[in-house]
Amino acid sequence: MNSIILQQPGKIVFGENSIQQLSEDNLIAQSDRILFLIASPLLQAIQPVFDKISTTGKKVVVIEYDFPGEPTFQQFDSLLNKSDYFHPDCVIGVGGGSVLDCAKLLAALTGSKQQLSEIVGIGLLTGRSIKLICVPTTSGTGSEMSPNAILLNEDTAAKSGIISPYLVPDSCYIDPVLTVSLPPHLTAETGMDALSHCIEAYTNKFAHPAVDTYALKGIELIALNLQKAVVNGNDLTARSALSLGSMYGGLCLGPVNTSAVHALSYGLGGKFHVAHGLANAILLPEVLRFNLSVSPERHAAVALALGVKSRDTFEATALAGIERLQELSRSCGIPQHLSDIGITEAVLPELADIAMKVTRLLNNNPRVVTKEDAINIFKKLL
Amino acid sequence: MNSIILQQPGKIVFGENSIQQLSEDNLIAQSDRILFLIASPLLQAIQPVFDKISTTGKKVVVIEYDFPGEPTFQQFDSLLNKSDYFHPDCVIGVGGGSVLDCAKLLAALTGSKQQLSEIVGIGLLTGRSIKLICVPTTSGTGSEMSPNAILLNEDTAAKSGIISPYLVPDSCYIDPVLTVSLPPHLTAETGMDALSHCIEAYTNKFAHPAVDTYALKGIELIALNLQKAVVNGNDLTARSALSLGSMYGGLCLGPVNTSAVHALSYGLGGKFHVAHGLANAILLPEVLRFNLSVSPERHAAVALALGVKSRDTFEATALAGIERLQELSRSCGIPQHLSDIGITEAVLPELADIAMKVTRLLNNNPRVVTKEDAINIFKKLL
Repeated sequence: MNSIILQQPGKIVFGENSIQQLSEDNLIAQSDRILFLIASPLLQAIQPVFDKISTTGKKVVVIEYDFPGEPTFQQFDSLLNKSDYFHPDCVIGVGGGSVLDCAKLLAALTGSKQQLSEIVGIGLLTGRSIKLICVPTTSGTGSEMSPNAILLNEDTAAKSGIISPYLVPDSCYIDPVLTVSLPPHLTAETGMDALSHCIEAYTNKFAHPAVDTYALKGIELIALNLQKAVVNGNDLTARSALSLGSMYGGLCLGPVNTSAVHALSYGLGGKFHVAHGLANAILLPEVLRFNLSVSPERHAAVALALGVKSRDTFEATALAGIERLQELSRSCGIPQHLSDIGITEAVLPELADIAMKVTRLLNNNPRVVTKEDAINIFKKLL
Repeated sequence: MNSIILQQPGKIVFGENSIQQLSEDNLIAQSDRILFLIASPLLQAIQPVFDKISTTGKKVVVIEYDFPGEPTFQQFDSLLNKSDYFHPDCVIGVGGGSVLDCAKLLAALTGSKQQLSEIVGIGLLTGRSIKLICVPTTSGTGSEMSPNAILLNEDTAAKSGIISPYLVPDSCYIDPVLTVSLPPHLTAETGMDALSHCIEAYTNKFAHPAVDTYALKGIELIALNLQKAVVNGNDLTARSALSLGSMYGGLCLGPVNTSAVHALSYGLGGKFHVAHGLANAILLPEVLRFNLSVSPERHAAVALALGVKSRDTFEATALAGIERLQELSRSCGIPQHLSDIGITEAVLPELADIAMKVTRLLNNNPRVVTKEDAINIFKKLL
């Protein structure tokens, strides 16, 4: 087996009500000034946690995160100003991917000599001295497990990745109870995003057995439970399974990462503000059809993990898997066409141009994707 | 899902020749005084690594580890004296479980105000300021993943567990190439130990879905590859799979841990100096027969992971799994009876007495084990 680097939080507290243990975390015990960055809808749920920490005499500041869509450079700068003013020794992010990405960058850049613009890219961050705890509230993004943070450049409408081992949190608290209040459409979209992390890692050109384990189990858990959680948000068994599946999806991101689905979705998100999970969900089946011929056996394994019975050939099994994926997506209320979300044929070349720049992810795709291929994939989805 | 704490090294470099990246690890870049604790047979293989580090002007000291059997308190003290004298800021252990356990304790106790005797037990270590990297050279112990270290008290012949989150290494380098020179009988015994970690975690009273994933995959990998690596130590595909399976076994140890097999083996190791993996290998099938009735479905799942086809009932499948396990063990040259390793009926009550004291592990067993039960299990294995 090839050499691969697996990086993850050294401590993951997983399960129902795990958030109640957060106030006793060793990292908090070692901190004096704690900054919470919290998605607005979660403020109330987290109140008991920071009340508990405040009673110990530690300084606690809460920044409410309420930016719509994906965070921009400017929005992040406004958060960084507040954080610089407070100069925390521990940052705790509570929310979905946008909040966690910002919390990770706050921990890295508060009081640092490095500027945000210097660290866009891979491995440019020189260190992180502020402790970092992430608490995901979607099953979803996997940001709490990964070395990645994505910001939107408002001038160019391009999504910019900041990738660094220093962005992997020290601790994570993954509490399915915190995902219960997530509305059905966000449950569906974030769940399909997590599923995409697993599928794109397993069918990746750089797939690795040490990551395949997470990918296949993640696919299985999400396929079995996503619709249940969409239909009944209070189904804690389904919510727990999705949290675990999403955690596994997150563990795929650092060492292997995603490929063409995520690359093709960059323009949909950056230019047309389509929600990240929704964009990936629409693209996923068609990209798999495009990739299938290169590695039918891997695509068949994905199908089996999705719950499809084995067919006569890998190809047939893989195709049945893609159909199963579309059924799942439809049953969760996800639109199946780009035209459903206002994308017209006229913008496809521009979307393809944006995708072609995401070489970081396109290079991972098992099959080469040209601009023409990208346009064709988009066209089939109109 | 219940709340569970998963702790692991934040960075795992896994795969063939991964050891070649060790000298460039960030932790080493941040260190000035590096202590290697290396099992004698590995000295030559690691020479290029510490030569490379030495050329950067850092102080490197190598302590050769050549104690036979499990490390004693006294032996550890002799290592600690050397380490205190050198006062490293980074400790790197290279070897099997004994070496890694000692390296972990060296990183925790060098220059510390705490004494070894104060930290025996669970959660008594107050911190660790020295960086810690572990490099396992067996597939095996799982110590590189776990918060556990075990020393032998030479006065009482009791094995003493030191359990602390601070004993989880910061980084691990798991390079299957380093296991190639391990002789067949050690490959077999350490492999059966890793298998036991997985099986005892999956059938554990405190089993958890987030750990089951590792346990089942570990069982599958070890069952498929152990004999191959025993027959041909140079089979790198099998060695890689065993390394991964052993890593998964190690990831079971912190959050769930082992149960009656490991508890019953304490006396065999501590009093009669039977190798740890060998003792577990002999005990495993009979303990599974004892436990089976309490959770036939879980024991059947173990059987399926071992490669057995499903039978009419969970019990039948589970029993076929135990037979498969014994075939595997025999095919790897492992003795199947306690009498084969010099244990007589006369000492069984003493062995049972020692086992009864290991409540930390016995409490994990799905079925209550009385002293009489323990004697009966031993008797069946004579």
